[in-house]
Amino acid sequence: MRYHRIPDETIQRLPIYLRALLFSSEKAQDSISSCNLGNLVGVNPWQIRKDFSYFGEFGTRGVGYNIEKLAKQIKKILKLDVVQKAALVGAGNIGTAVLAYPGFGIFGIDIAVAFDVNPKKIGRKITNTAIEDVSKLWTLKKRKIKLAIIAVPQQAAQQTADALVKAGVRGILNFSPCYITVPKKVKVITIDIAMDLARLPYYIPAS
Amino acid sequence: MRYHRIPDETIQRLPIYLRALLFSSEKAQDSISSCNLGNLVGVNPWQIRKDFSYFGEFGTRGVGYNIEKLAKQIKKILKLDVVQKAALVGAGNIGTAVLAYPGFGIFGIDIAVAFDVNPKKIGRKITNTAIEDVSKLWTLKKRKIKLAIIAVPQQAAQQTADALVKAGVRGILNFSPCYITVPKKVKVITIDIAMDLARLPYYIPAS
Repeated sequence: MRYHRIPDETIQRLPIYLRALLFSSEKAQDSISSCNLGNLVGVNPWQIRKDFSYFGEFGTRGVGYNIEKLAKQIKKILKLDVVQKAALVGAGNIGTAVLAYPGFGIFGIDIAVAFDVNPKKIGRKITNTAIEDVSKLWTLKKRKIKLAIIAVPQQAAQQTADALVKAGVRGILNFSPCYITVPKKVKVITIDIAMDLARLPYYIPAS
Repeated sequence: MRYHRIPDETIQRLPIYLRALLFSSEKAQDSISSCNLGNLVGVNPWQIRKDFSYFGEFGTRGVGYNIEKLAKQIKKILKLDVVQKAALVGAGNIGTAVLAYPGFGIFGIDIAVAFDVNPKKIGRKITNTAIEDVSKLWTLKKRKIKLAIIAVPQQAAQQTADALVKAGVRGILNFSPCYITVPKKVKVITIDIAMDLARLPYYIPAS
């Protein structure tokens, strides 16, 4: 199944919807309207309906969406209907926070291995994930791990990305506050926590 | 100066543009075209021109944008033309990573104080920021700090948000993997690192 010309923004919202649906299904509801889903996630109902329209007919007019079915469909679209293994590079502050983060499980993501340069960390475990020597990054290829998280210091980010790409990684979540360059076949999402904080003052009225 | 009906998505992109402009100006360029800016940040040039059009005329046809002037204007729109002080609540893994993060400075953001419940942490400093007792959260009002970062465990997130709102905080960056409820006058941005990782598999072709 292929989906053409679907905006990145839609793909960005799908995990938001998915999480809300999984939370709703915990509350033993059967269906949800686009209005209620919209309220939960802070997105306009028409935007939600438009996002889903790219993938065919999901809801029934007047009844809403069947939560279980919709969650299943979104998981399939996002390829989260199978366990996705990921590797972490850099077991410093951010890396440790990532390993301790409880939110990956609901998306079926398993941070299967972590790498670091520090001999004191190599061989240890952080929150059940073993830390391996970063020189073993190339083993990701035979382990078929195609997702990675970069949480190394800024000056090591590009060389880490290069090594990951060489090891067959196709999706990178980058926490280093810098641009990294990768071939077109690789998708990078850079998280800059400063940037998110930087747009808050706009919404605060001067006192 | 007020700006009406400006989409959140535009406000979200402004810090991205700003960071790219500040990086460009380091390289001693005078001006930049929307195409070159677009290449730097991965946004369509027409989108960039549309985003700027909400705020008046910024560029000159055929010449592009004056980098220094444009950066100044974006800073003003985002209210980053003055130093914005922020407070951090929770000096655990994520909190420590936030305090060590080098990226806040370029946006003029100063994490002026951190709070924690752990007596062993209170009174210490992490990356030059003093850790205070979380029972002192109310002092944010007299310190006129209106921005806060929540990095506490999930079960403490809502009560932390309530205390922050009571202390006059109007903008919250939330790292806890849960929804928090705040009055309409308060803007919350929730960062869910799992959610960002969850949309990467979509882009990876099956092998």
